[in-house]
Amino acid sequence: MGDLRRILNAESVAIIGASRDETKRGYQAIITLKKSGFEGSIYPVNPREKRILGLKCYPNVEEIKESVDLALITTPAHTMPDIIVSCGRKGIAGAVIIAGGFGELGVDGKRLEKEILSTANTYGVRIVGPNTSGVINMWSGMNLVGLHNVPKGDIALLTQSGNIALHLITEATLKSQKGFSYYVGVGNESDILFDEYLEFFRNDEKTRAILIYVEGLRNGRKFLQQVYRTSREKPIIVLKSGRSTTGQKSAGSHTGALAGISEVARSSFQRAGIITIEEPDQLFPVAETLSSLPPIKNKSVAILADGGGHATIAADLLTDLGVEIPTLCERTQQRLKGLLPENASVSNPVDVAGGTDSNPEIFARCAKILLADPKIGGLLIVGLFGGYAIRFAEKLRFIEEDAAHQMGKLVRKSGKPIVLQSLYNSIKPHSLELLRYYGIPVYDSLNIATRCIGSLSHYGQYLKTYMYKTNFHFKWRSKARKGAVKIITKARREGRKALLEHEAKEIFKRHGAPVTHEQLAKSASNAVRIAETLGGKVALKIVSPEILHKSDAGGVELNVSGEENIRAAYNRIITNAKNYNPEAQIKGCLVANMTRKGVEVIIGTKIDRQFGPVVMFGIGGILVEVVRDVSFRVLPLSRAAATRMIDEIKSAPILNGFRGSPALDKQALTELLLTVSEIIESYPEIEEMDLNPVILHDRGIHIADARILLKEDPVVVGYESGVPEPVHMG
Amino acid sequence: MGDLRRILNAESVAIIGASRDETKRGYQAIITLKKSGFEGSIYPVNPREKRILGLKCYPNVEEIKESVDLALITTPAHTMPDIIVSCGRKGIAGAVIIAGGFGELGVDGKRLEKEILSTANTYGVRIVGPNTSGVINMWSGMNLVGLHNVPKGDIALLTQSGNIALHLITEATLKSQKGFSYYVGVGNESDILFDEYLEFFRNDEKTRAILIYVEGLRNGRKFLQQVYRTSREKPIIVLKSGRSTTGQKSAGSHTGALAGISEVARSSFQRAGIITIEEPDQLFPVAETLSSLPPIKNKSVAILADGGGHATIAADLLTDLGVEIPTLCERTQQRLKGLLPENASVSNPVDVAGGTDSNPEIFARCAKILLADPKIGGLLIVGLFGGYAIRFAEKLRFIEEDAAHQMGKLVRKSGKPIVLQSLYNSIKPHSLELLRYYGIPVYDSLNIATRCIGSLSHYGQYLKTYMYKTNFHFKWRSKARKGAVKIITKARREGRKALLEHEAKEIFKRHGAPVTHEQLAKSASNAVRIAETLGGKVALKIVSPEILHKSDAGGVELNVSGEENIRAAYNRIITNAKNYNPEAQIKGCLVANMTRKGVEVIIGTKIDRQFGPVVMFGIGGILVEVVRDVSFRVLPLSRAAATRMIDEIKSAPILNGFRGSPALDKQALTELLLTVSEIIESYPEIEEMDLNPVILHDRGIHIADARILLKEDPVVVGYESGVPEPVHMG
Repeated sequence: MGDLRRILNAESVAIIGASRDETKRGYQAIITLKKSGFEGSIYPVNPREKRILGLKCYPNVEEIKESVDLALITTPAHTMPDIIVSCGRKGIAGAVIIAGGFGELGVDGKRLEKEILSTANTYGVRIVGPNTSGVINMWSGMNLVGLHNVPKGDIALLTQSGNIALHLITEATLKSQKGFSYYVGVGNESDILFDEYLEFFRNDEKTRAILIYVEGLRNGRKFLQQVYRTSREKPIIVLKSGRSTTGQKSAGSHTGALAGISEVARSSFQRAGIITIEEPDQLFPVAETLSSLPPIKNKSVAILADGGGHATIAADLLTDLGVEIPTLCERTQQRLKGLLPENASVSNPVDVAGGTDSNPEIFARCAKILLADPKIGGLLIVGLFGGYAIRFAEKLRFIEEDAAHQMGKLVRKSGKPIVLQSLYNSIKPHSLELLRYYGIPVYDSLNIATRCIGSLSHYGQYLKTYMYKTNFHFKWRSKARKGAVKIITKARREGRKALLEHEAKEIFKRHGAPVTHEQLAKSASNAVRIAETLGGKVALKIVSPEILHKSDAGGVELNVSGEENIRAAYNRIITNAKNYNPEAQIKGCLVANMTRKGVEVIIGTKIDRQFGPVVMFGIGGILVEVVRDVSFRVLPLSRAAATRMIDEIKSAPILNGFRGSPALDKQALTELLLTVSEIIESYPEIEEMDLNPVILHDRGIHIADARILLKEDPVVVGYESGVPEPVHMG
Repeated sequence: MGDLRRILNAESVAIIGASRDETKRGYQAIITLKKSGFEGSIYPVNPREKRILGLKCYPNVEEIKESVDLALITTPAHTMPDIIVSCGRKGIAGAVIIAGGFGELGVDGKRLEKEILSTANTYGVRIVGPNTSGVINMWSGMNLVGLHNVPKGDIALLTQSGNIALHLITEATLKSQKGFSYYVGVGNESDILFDEYLEFFRNDEKTRAILIYVEGLRNGRKFLQQVYRTSREKPIIVLKSGRSTTGQKSAGSHTGALAGISEVARSSFQRAGIITIEEPDQLFPVAETLSSLPPIKNKSVAILADGGGHATIAADLLTDLGVEIPTLCERTQQRLKGLLPENASVSNPVDVAGGTDSNPEIFARCAKILLADPKIGGLLIVGLFGGYAIRFAEKLRFIEEDAAHQMGKLVRKSGKPIVLQSLYNSIKPHSLELLRYYGIPVYDSLNIATRCIGSLSHYGQYLKTYMYKTNFHFKWRSKARKGAVKIITKARREGRKALLEHEAKEIFKRHGAPVTHEQLAKSASNAVRIAETLGGKVALKIVSPEILHKSDAGGVELNVSGEENIRAAYNRIITNAKNYNPEAQIKGCLVANMTRKGVEVIIGTKIDRQFGPVVMFGIGGILVEVVRDVSFRVLPLSRAAATRMIDEIKSAPILNGFRGSPALDKQALTELLLTVSEIIESYPEIEEMDLNPVILHDRGIHIADARILLKEDPVVVGYESGVPEPVHMG
């Protein structure tokens, strides 16, 4: 995997398809590079021209004598195969392909895209795009997008849509003092995926935050792995669109990638430390905030308002975001009382109740008092600040400006952030400009302001816990594998995709998980003998590679006792099974002790197209089947994730002791989820598993039934979207 | 109940507490009235002044010779009792009380507020406030708020927060061409409640939409009744804050009203036709849209975009709002293909794919084609429109303006609305100003634009269905009452608050609802005899006024048969009951047939503090107890509401035939909910009822257990927040 530095920090750029026609991209590209102050070399390439805009024009990149880092290709799709060969021969590190007409346009386009990629790989040329809006390095002036006046700053912008990028750049220009370090339109990602760009930004000194607009991921697993490494150093803010069916259709029609956000994506983004944004209005503001201010360490915020309505709405919105608004310390309340009128609220939210009308400097004093409260991690100011000169008296303008200076310095000194919402923001008073100078963002929207301070709290919480999270890499557990791999080998040898119940259970047993005790009976008499040795009532279950859904086939009998009954049950099951599927090979019946009563839970794994192996958990019966009350996680699981996926289902109270029954053994359940994770790490041959039911007791747990399906081909199947196999395979 | 016309359309205003001090409200009020061009008479009142701002000043309102409609009182709370007496003697219709220090400040304040109200009632003076920011009639210039430059228009603004009003007015001024017809700060609502203001606006010709900010309602029932009458004529847009605990605390500390939005409020607001807004940013835009554009009749919208990212996000957001984005008719798609480049998407969302870059007039042509599609009820345009001159070429400015004129006329002609989102909105290009002139609102936020067109769809849907909804009035069902009222009278006479199970069931039986057959046994032998006549297995249940939770007391035995067993069960129950509560009067046991198997559902009613009687429905067991999967409705129920409250619970699939079992009798369940509604209408004596369980079969339904609690005092109890008793009571 090549390094992107020669691409994104290129010192020399060839413009392939350079033109003298002002309306052509091949002309605009050169103009833009010049206007943006690009200090590197520019080499126009066009066999029909000698000079363009005062620069020597080359018939072919190979004719250029000097070294060339990057090529911007503005010619149509069909010219690409030859051009990439030339670029390869010239030793160019990367090609930015603007043209569409590839993977997003069906089978022929896909073939062309594949062909180009193969050539590029041969020569070691990396591809940005195709179908990309281009790339910009704001610090070197390497602007290959054709957007002028992009503000420079420390936010890296990584986007699957040129429009949305334009939207964000316009917003930054009009509403903030922040700007961008890089712009990358990822296009169809035929070669370089999100994760490699992320890695580059992680190592880039100019970048403090990474803003991503994504509709679909080609390789969710690699993405998460890189996000995990990056997010602890730099906040990553993501808007993932294409949630709805129509949205997915729309996304599919303009990018080649697979769209759709699932519960799986949502929870894994969060685990990896991404700040996920649902509303486009919040995307740039949250990036602005996270790149400017320290995160909140204790998820507790104070609200300072000069009006009750704003305070109430802000409290609602912050609560929705899981931010706490604790009652202030007694000492803090006393200090505020000394400063504010009698009818002010001083508990939190603080409502100054007119106390700032004649002196907005009181805001700064309140802010100082509030941020000195050890219970408070950050401050949200809402209301009229910035507009006191307009609302009350002209001379207050200067007092507001003084307050802005004080609050700005306060953030630096206290290490706690302030975010401000002002009704007068759109009038752009100087006091608010001052706040921005100190990195305090200001919004006219309560919704956006609360989301911004909320994101500082969410990011702060993540930084406190990332060491307990998975890095989304599989560990190769060869030792654990040894005992049970024979079972899989045998099934394969017999041409079976499904393991038999007792085989699946044997694997779990070898990994230390509790399964019901049972033995295979090959005749009714055999069943009777086994039942005698087990003692008590037994369950009988059909064993046949062709019968996966045993109950549907009449292949299960429960609570059987006594020789006659057992014999009859055995025979009934065999008859039912033969009727159900006359082709089925009948291996006999499993005879097992009835498990103690308990709550039935369900654990399953499958392979997600974007993220690879995932695990599902739920409580059996209607809660799973009707209410869909289940939780998902991308595997492998950390202990913390296992615990949380148990606690986050709505019906979790059942596990904590319901209607006076004792609490169930969540510890054992957690261990079993971790064993499931370990088994998936040990046997990449597994396509999916289904433990249903698992019986959870007040002490202990038992797998009552287990089903494991193997992949057709262990090396490639199941990871269609390019999710890599664990490296030990092959 | 007086008419508010003399108040809100007052032709003469007394300023009580008029002042020559420029910083005083009593000075500002007069200046503001003059500046606002108020054409009526202004009478300053202050015993210490002769003239203020060129107007004669009176020592007391009673000294004014001419008739006075309205008094604005700017003096402190303690002066109010005397002033209200003067106003009353003078025959003033209304008093606007600015001062705080009443109900919102605890017991003493509450007492003062009550005293003033009582005086006002005696003299027939209506009170606006106290603790109000004031009122404005924008058309007469009667501005009693002290806000200048409020834009005039057709939206009535009704608010519990002065700040939020200021926010909305500022937003209207800066971002729209719309304005307000009236402003009313309701304050503490000690006299005039939301519903009376609503009624006024319903009848007011200048008002086309009503925008409400509310934290808590004093009388939710009256509010809903008036909303029901108003919303079919004029859209009502409401932001209800104070959802969170902290938000409620904050609301409580600055208004006197009871805060908190519940599931009950949410569903009843929707039933009454309110457009409920959760995000403050959307409040004014939605009001602007609903007051300017025709509603969408078929909840189907087309999206027209000049970029894929915006189209995808818009599709996601509209889908979240329940708006449909249907595939366009074949003919529409053909017409678009004729107009747009080959790679354009023409199904919906429509992506012009560069087809407008050199000619934005194509937008108008696409709009015409799209609104001609019979499947499409409205159009959302997203992207760069308004910025083509900036983005592409200066001369496109005029073409955009032409397109704006065409689209504006298209809305008028087609009767279908267009809403626009533009990246360039904040730069205020003339083309977007033109669109606003035609009533087409423009936003830079996708979120707001989608919510606006979504609200046109929601309002259109409401207008199609309001005739099937309840008007929230109770009907007096004296005839139905006759049969069973004796049961209630008897319980009261015996000093009981709870009806016994068989009494409660008798009421249901008289109203035609199916209950289990059962008889009261007063001895074990008696129980045996009853069981013999019933035949089959029976259930025995304790009957005692002191034992409401029969199972907890060991007072229920199920599936009992055979003389010995019945006798033993009877005696066990009696012993258990005596142990459970030695004071309990034991009346015996009910003996009933075991009901056929079925699904247990739960129906209950209680009295909500804001809205009066409400009904709850859920499926028994963990779904209600753990997952809280229940639905609520304010009573009475229409048939449509009963059906919907059954279908909207998450576990509703269970009722439709689950795991191969037959579908259950939802018809019978609907009838039972309607019977519950009828019973609540027939017996205002009922505080709450609990039908748990009700057994629902594939054909039929049975109430297996019923509990009814009576109010302490039928005339006043249970309607604490002033929800009126049905008029027949007393």
